[in-house]
Amino acid sequence: MSIRMGKKSDPMSDQEFDQLFRKVCNWDRWGPNDERGTLNYIAPAHVRAAAALVRSGRSVSLAIPVNTVAGPDNPHPAVHHMVQTHDVSPELGEPSFALDYMACEFHGDCHTHIDALCHIGYKGKLYNSKPASSVTSHGPTLMDITAYAHGIVGRGVLLDIPHFRGVKWLEPGEAVTSEELEGAEKAQGVRLAEGDIFLFRTGHHRRRLELGSWNNGYDGLGRAGLHARTMLMLHERKVAVFLPDGDGETVPSNVEGVAYPIHALQVGAMGMACADSLQFEELRKICEEEDRWEFMVVIAPLRFPRSTGSLINPIAIF
Amino acid sequence: MSIRMGKKSDPMSDQEFDQLFRKVCNWDRWGPNDERGTLNYIAPAHVRAAAALVRSGRSVSLAIPVNTVAGPDNPHPAVHHMVQTHDVSPELGEPSFALDYMACEFHGDCHTHIDALCHIGYKGKLYNSKPASSVTSHGPTLMDITAYAHGIVGRGVLLDIPHFRGVKWLEPGEAVTSEELEGAEKAQGVRLAEGDIFLFRTGHHRRRLELGSWNNGYDGLGRAGLHARTMLMLHERKVAVFLPDGDGETVPSNVEGVAYPIHALQVGAMGMACADSLQFEELRKICEEEDRWEFMVVIAPLRFPRSTGSLINPIAIF
Amino acid sequence: MSIRMGKKSDPMSDQEFDQLFRKVCNWDRWGPNDERGTLNYIAPAHVRAAAALVRSGRSVSLAIPVNTVAGPDNPHPAVHHMVQTHDVSPELGEPSFALDYMACEFHGDCHTHIDALCHIGYKGKLYNSKPASSVTSHGPTLMDITAYAHGIVGRGVLLDIPHFRGVKWLEPGEAVTSEELEGAEKAQGVRLAEGDIFLFRTGHHRRRLELGSWNNGYDGLGRAGLHARTMLMLHERKVAVFLPDGDGETVPSNVEGVAYPIHALQVGAMGMACADSLQFEELRKICEEEDRWEFMVVIAPLRFPRSTGSLINPIAIF
Amino acid sequence: MSIRMGKKSDPMSDQEFDQLFRKVCNWDRWGPNDERGTLNYIAPAHVRAAAALVRSGRSVSLAIPVNTVAGPDNPHPAVHHMVQTHDVSPELGEPSFALDYMACEFHGDCHTHIDALCHIGYKGKLYNSKPASSVTSHGPTLMDITAYAHGIVGRGVLLDIPHFRGVKWLEPGEAVTSEELEGAEKAQGVRLAEGDIFLFRTGHHRRRLELGSWNNGYDGLGRAGLHARTMLMLHERKVAVFLPDGDGETVPSNVEGVAYPIHALQVGAMGMACADSLQFEELRKICEEEDRWEFMVVIAPLRFPRSTGSLINPIAIF
Repeated sequence: MSIRMGKKSDPMSDQEFDQLFRKVCNWDRWGPNDERGTLNYIAPAHVRAAAALVRSGRSVSLAIPVNTVAGPDNPHPAVHHMVQTHDVSPELGEPSFALDYMACEFHGDCHTHIDALCHIGYKGKLYNSKPASSVTSHGPTLMDITAYAHGIVGRGVLLDIPHFRGVKWLEPGEAVTSEELEGAEKAQGVRLAEGDIFLFRTGHHRRRLELGSWNNGYDGLGRAGLHARTMLMLHERKVAVFLPDGDGETVPSNVEGVAYPIHALQVGAMGMACADSLQFEELRKICEEEDRWEFMVVIAPLRFPRSTGSLINPIAIF
Repeated sequence: MSIRMGKKSDPMSDQEFDQLFRKVCNWDRWGPNDERGTLNYIAPAHVRAAAALVRSGRSVSLAIPVNTVAGPDNPHPAVHHMVQTHDVSPELGEPSFALDYMACEFHGDCHTHIDALCHIGYKGKLYNSKPASSVTSHGPTLMDITAYAHGIVGRGVLLDIPHFRGVKWLEPGEAVTSEELEGAEKAQGVRLAEGDIFLFRTGHHRRRLELGSWNNGYDGLGRAGLHARTMLMLHERKVAVFLPDGDGETVPSNVEGVAYPIHALQVGAMGMACADSLQFEELRKICEEEDRWEFMVVIAPLRFPRSTGSLINPIAIF
Repeated sequence: MSIRMGKKSDPMSDQEFDQLFRKVCNWDRWGPNDERGTLNYIAPAHVRAAAALVRSGRSVSLAIPVNTVAGPDNPHPAVHHMVQTHDVSPELGEPSFALDYMACEFHGDCHTHIDALCHIGYKGKLYNSKPASSVTSHGPTLMDITAYAHGIVGRGVLLDIPHFRGVKWLEPGEAVTSEELEGAEKAQGVRLAEGDIFLFRTGHHRRRLELGSWNNGYDGLGRAGLHARTMLMLHERKVAVFLPDGDGETVPSNVEGVAYPIHALQVGAMGMACADSLQFEELRKICEEEDRWEFMVVIAPLRFPRSTGSLINPIAIF
Repeated sequence: MSIRMGKKSDPMSDQEFDQLFRKVCNWDRWGPNDERGTLNYIAPAHVRAAAALVRSGRSVSLAIPVNTVAGPDNPHPAVHHMVQTHDVSPELGEPSFALDYMACEFHGDCHTHIDALCHIGYKGKLYNSKPASSVTSHGPTLMDITAYAHGIVGRGVLLDIPHFRGVKWLEPGEAVTSEELEGAEKAQGVRLAEGDIFLFRTGHHRRRLELGSWNNGYDGLGRAGLHARTMLMLHERKVAVFLPDGDGETVPSNVEGVAYPIHALQVGAMGMACADSLQFEELRKICEEEDRWEFMVVIAPLRFPRSTGSLINPIAIF
């Protein structure tokens, strides 16, 4: 299958993409062995400022419940089984223990997860110019998810594009531009700044809840996301973390010959901490109740050596 | 196998245990359908106060790296495999994606995890008097881990017993009393209070790092933990969350005929949010550097319906 | 969901079903602790006779390739991952080893598997009157798949109903009667006899290959199979083993209030060794070439303690 | 870790090994795209002759029960969980179904399994000169286990070396020579011939049953097996299939710089169908009762595309 490009008002050629890649590239910015990428933007003052946003004490999950049912966007469903229920008399006496087991892939279009920087290769290179072959059949030899072991803490800013447009959700294939991001900033009275955690809402999950899941890949309906040029804005603003519903990609892509340009730029070039498949349906109601679009965010990836990512349950605290 | 009881200075009979169970029992305290148990102690003011502890902006993991190697305390090692490395040309063009897969049990003595309230049955009852048969082969029908879906946020207080005693770690089988907990509080200048997250350090993980893993069960060396009577203190103090290295249990137990009294009391009677198998080796150094034993803690269990627990990576923020 | 019954010319009431259950019931026929059920019909002479059918030396698989792709009849796809490829230098020197990992459920409508007798409960009882609670969350305590550990060897007889009818396959919902089985016997010049392995072809798999997979359950199109009354014939003939494409069930069922009567009768009442989801597309061509419908069959379930079944690759030898 | 070589009376240098590799090499013998290797030796007449050995109708498993308990020779234990017991009321009415789930690696020193030819690489090459990189992170692109999909059927010949020596088992590190194999042949009155399935007994499993499992690798006690030179004999005799208890390897190896020479020669050079970790404890008693060491053998690997091997339960039929 070769990719088809969306008929967009603002397409990008392969060459332009390579220029953009170089412009936003952070390779060697924080040294040749850096594994934290844009997390380097988060300074102690940013964490303090994020904590200072905690006023009402409410917290809310940004994760989709883990999904064990196969479907058009979940070809590899998570597995969950009981290992033991309370039907078995405990060998040693009271109490009894109920135990379970899970298995899953860390990536895909249905489970809220974070990517390690080794997850993405572009033309044979990972972030910071490391060879793609650093990821062996035994797992990555560098830039695995333990680079984020001590958690990601900062100020979260939600830009709610469907709210800005006055629609329920963006339709598959629609791409959000920098101008629209800036428009949403102004309308909401917030501004993405250095070290921020950017929550990008397209309404992907709301569409899924209301219309059911759909094949959001190249052989399906596609998905709404960012235009590749928005990476310039995120780069200039020094955004540290990207949390989209969907995964940030517009499918079909705006870039000729590059199926998933956002991942290539964010993870491959910028070394940005990126998660996929969040949901903001509970969050946006709280934002409206609290009348603010900024809050503390804590992300705690599993401390899993040699892993290319982790299921996560990011928490927003108001 | 029937349990052997430790030769303790302060043993407890089965009857005394039942009395203690009733004394600390929170069944119906927050209504017949409550699933949050002692998390009800955490009020908005406690979350605000916890966030106010964030000053230096440092964060640290309280988790042990997920362990895929079988051993005496890890009979069911986690599984981790690559699903795809960058060796396969991406079907749709650039970029390439590295993917992996994991499988694990959520409980055991080696993986940092949190228990759902359905995890423990005592004499056929779960917390809040629910029947143990509510956990079926399809999973729990109530009190699964999604009760904690929106995260656990509060003030963490570390009581470091080996530090208090001036030893590297407690030896397997040693039980910590309320008097000793109070002694550590005074020495450290902190006091467990309503809504707190109690980090209880026995040095279990340090012993593991220095001497290697050991069989810490009834057919092995055992483990250091709390004396069952300390539950009275935790109950009176209205502690909300319990985070031990080890799992809080003294093995062999101090209670005649009850193999794991701490779980029975904490989870079964009190409805306490309890985690197991944390490590505080990185934390304690930061506490010493920061010269304080209190900090913000955020726990984000996976949002896994019908699960009896979750792997977690609890984060302390200073 | 309550089951809908097919509009059949020959429906069966709940009461008639219970009578039929009693008629074909083999409980206690081979003693109260029997775990071999109808395999008891296979005497040494039958094995010898089966081996005597080996003349051309050809062998052929009766299994569907294990399917790792989710689909309408495969909601829990098998998992397959590499554990190691030859990209990692062997720690000890040559040679290098490629390793892999698989995970699967043993039942379902897509993987060729055999059922252990504990697999089916009817009104709280397993075969031989054992309580259904003998299957605990730790697995069956009796009648697991190791009852078949030493393999199943005998004469296989294929009755090819689509061939008899002159169609490509039976349509979902169609039920085959005893009269039709006898008709096929006569047409093919074979007769099911004591100790035989009965291969029952509806063309289920051919339909799947030509039209694609379909939801063959009660919320889908259904499937073709046997009429419940055919169990009288199989009982009288003392058939030992049942190997269908599909699983032998007609969906919707011919029996009021019983969703899967064939399993209830075969496994629950008769203690018959039953497999599911075989394919005879390669076999039937060989049968035609060899101009015979009988052959040696060997089934070798994995020797898996406490298992309710096993993936299998049954082999027919000519 | 670099390998240590056993202090053997008959060591082999790296160069001698390469000569031996070339002598027994079957590359291109059956064409450049051959995937059946030594199975090509099994002609229809061999299958007929094997079937003619079926006289008493007894059959016996050659497999070890699948082992879910971690141990020194089982670092990656198989996983087995119930998916459903009969405790859940069937949604559609009777009957109820008990379901389970398994996960395992196909190789290792504890589970009876067969190797696909892609399993072994020697100096970057697989059997038939295929590049080792043909095995990708998506699995092998050639010579996977489906090459054996239609089963392996032939005459099995057991050579029981401990019986020949008059000992219970060979001790770890002991290597059996061609002379000893020929001695056992004479003593037992059998002779390995073209197309045969060679069952090689060292008593490995009996030792395990009586003394418990042990680390049989290079960092442990090692294991008894064949001397590398015996491959000349197997090559000349045109043996088709190799079924050892243990895995045929002597550890430490007799060959300088080659950790597992038997696999390199059998699988890599000869393209021989090889299984590992069988047990003959039930078989040898039947051989003695029947007073013969030859019998029909049927092996039915799971039909698993892209797999480097399969769990198996080989069946001997007398």
